[in-house]
Amino acid sequence: MQKSLILPSASDFHIHLRQDDLMNMVVPRIAEGGISLCYVMPNLKPPITSTEQALAYKDKLEKLEPNVTFLMSLYLSPDLTPEEIRKAKAAGIVGVKSYPRGVTTNSDSGIESYTVYYPVFKTMEEVGMVLNLHGEIPSDIEQDICVMNAEEKFLIHLKQLHNDFPKLKIVLEHATTKAAVEMVKSLGDTIGCTITIHHLQLIVDDWAGQCHNFCKPVAKFPHDRKALRDVILEGHPRFFLGTDSAPHPAHLKECAQSCAGVFTTPLTLPYLATIFDSFNALPMLKSFACENGKKFYSVKEEKCREIKLIKETLPVPNSYPFGDTQPGIVIPFWSGKTLTWKIDQS
Amino acid sequence: MQKSLILPSASDFHIHLRQDDLMNMVVPRIAEGGISLCYVMPNLKPPITSTEQALAYKDKLEKLEPNVTFLMSLYLSPDLTPEEIRKAKAAGIVGVKSYPRGVTTNSDSGIESYTVYYPVFKTMEEVGMVLNLHGEIPSDIEQDICVMNAEEKFLIHLKQLHNDFPKLKIVLEHATTKAAVEMVKSLGDTIGCTITIHHLQLIVDDWAGQCHNFCKPVAKFPHDRKALRDVILEGHPRFFLGTDSAPHPAHLKECAQSCAGVFTTPLTLPYLATIFDSFNALPMLKSFACENGKKFYSVKEEKCREIKLIKETLPVPNSYPFGDTQPGIVIPFWSGKTLTWKIDQS
Repeated sequence: MQKSLILPSASDFHIHLRQDDLMNMVVPRIAEGGISLCYVMPNLKPPITSTEQALAYKDKLEKLEPNVTFLMSLYLSPDLTPEEIRKAKAAGIVGVKSYPRGVTTNSDSGIESYTVYYPVFKTMEEVGMVLNLHGEIPSDIEQDICVMNAEEKFLIHLKQLHNDFPKLKIVLEHATTKAAVEMVKSLGDTIGCTITIHHLQLIVDDWAGQCHNFCKPVAKFPHDRKALRDVILEGHPRFFLGTDSAPHPAHLKECAQSCAGVFTTPLTLPYLATIFDSFNALPMLKSFACENGKKFYSVKEEKCREIKLIKETLPVPNSYPFGDTQPGIVIPFWSGKTLTWKIDQS
Repeated sequence: MQKSLILPSASDFHIHLRQDDLMNMVVPRIAEGGISLCYVMPNLKPPITSTEQALAYKDKLEKLEPNVTFLMSLYLSPDLTPEEIRKAKAAGIVGVKSYPRGVTTNSDSGIESYTVYYPVFKTMEEVGMVLNLHGEIPSDIEQDICVMNAEEKFLIHLKQLHNDFPKLKIVLEHATTKAAVEMVKSLGDTIGCTITIHHLQLIVDDWAGQCHNFCKPVAKFPHDRKALRDVILEGHPRFFLGTDSAPHPAHLKECAQSCAGVFTTPLTLPYLATIFDSFNALPMLKSFACENGKKFYSVKEEKCREIKLIKETLPVPNSYPFGDTQPGIVIPFWSGKTLTWKIDQS
């Protein structure tokens, strides 16, 4: 039985770092989880739609945590111009994130149309920026579209975009279905895919009435979870870690209408090692969490350090407090449970 | 546009009336919802497994509400004997409820086996008692069984039971899928099916992160909801109202692990009329809510009264308080929303 594992610090290619009090709690905990590089989501209030906003946000993050590399992204909206893309690229911004809500303004009968963004995508392809897709189409009762098939029904759009922009690097974010895994595998080398920690563990039963396991896209059937695990076991190089860690105050989870999001940042590698161990995937942990993503993004990292994981029990905290003036707590994934791997602090 | 509707008071063939403080709150509200007959679930703590318990519970219910007819049921367990069935029948008890948990003790690889109960079922068939099935099999990751397909995978057992006991009246409770509707339609006249209020309205999206819409079986795809609505529009006589109304204190819903159940009792007919109106099914309301169930169960009712529904707005209360020593609240289905039909109190 393997008792320890030495890795380079990992990369999280999909993370929500929030603002203000929550940001002040989360950012210093990135390194705790064994992460030294992260790709930061732009869905702030207001969303990050310009180079200036992205650089100002990056500056705040770096001041809070100088030992982590922050890769920045812009929020796709109809206001984004090819000029802004060139400016962003020159400033070191790495990609653009597309959310389904932003697309529905240009949708036809619930089917998304990306056509309006084609000049932006063309420029991104030229300058070498990455397009990050939240791959779900909006629910539509008449068309039998709901949270359980919204990802599968989106995949045709991924294929079309890849066909129209074969050199544009596109990442299907937080894949949850067998259909998504198969589609990504079927496409060319410019198509990557992130997988979260929690989607390697949860199925639909786990978020039925369990708000802390509720996120979008929702976890799906057992055969879907198996497909996510299988593509990792296979060692496919275009699948890599993007946790989609998304902290919310507990009172916005334990209520009538819960916010979507699972918080994993402080224990990223301990969660991953525990789950990978459970399906005999430890040999794939390094490529999945530390290598594949950086290769896909063609990024070099300067802040990498060595991490030693050891097979010892680690209780997940019940909560993480945040905020000075208005204190709150965030309840992490698997709160109160015990992990079987931890980072050696010696 | 129809402005009013006169019906006999309705029958709810699947209701949870609880115990103690919750019972004291719920039972007096049955008639408020336009119900004068209900078939009472036996899943108390401890469950009702004997004739004596059922009669004692019935006595409590009748003292609280003399204007409602309470039909009683027993909880199926391996301890239930053919002798007890004969005794129950003689005492006026109407049926026996099977829950999946009680069956898994005799299951093989997650597939339920009812064989151990065949002597009991044989006696029920002889004396004329009804078997009520919670039609789900337990989730099983290895067999790809989860809350989304647990009902569909159960249906083969319904078919088998019907085949083995063709004269036994069996009700598939709270159907949620197109597959269930089709199976019930395909079987003989001794197979009935209840449909809840909330499953005529909700899909999976509605309980994703919304604990007050979370119940078991969970609401499923839009095409499943359509099948439930279609079988009502068709006027099929073996489908009838069983609300599965199941009150829980709010603090056991708005928490990390929510209890399953939707509370609809105080507004049964206003909810139903509002939802039926939305899919042009008002002409079917009387047969579905007032006639089909009593015909299937062959029960005569003595406490029926006339109800006048009028098309006027009715706000759903935010909550129903209960309890004297330890006060709590129950949050009803659609709390804070406005119904379009109400019961005329004049």
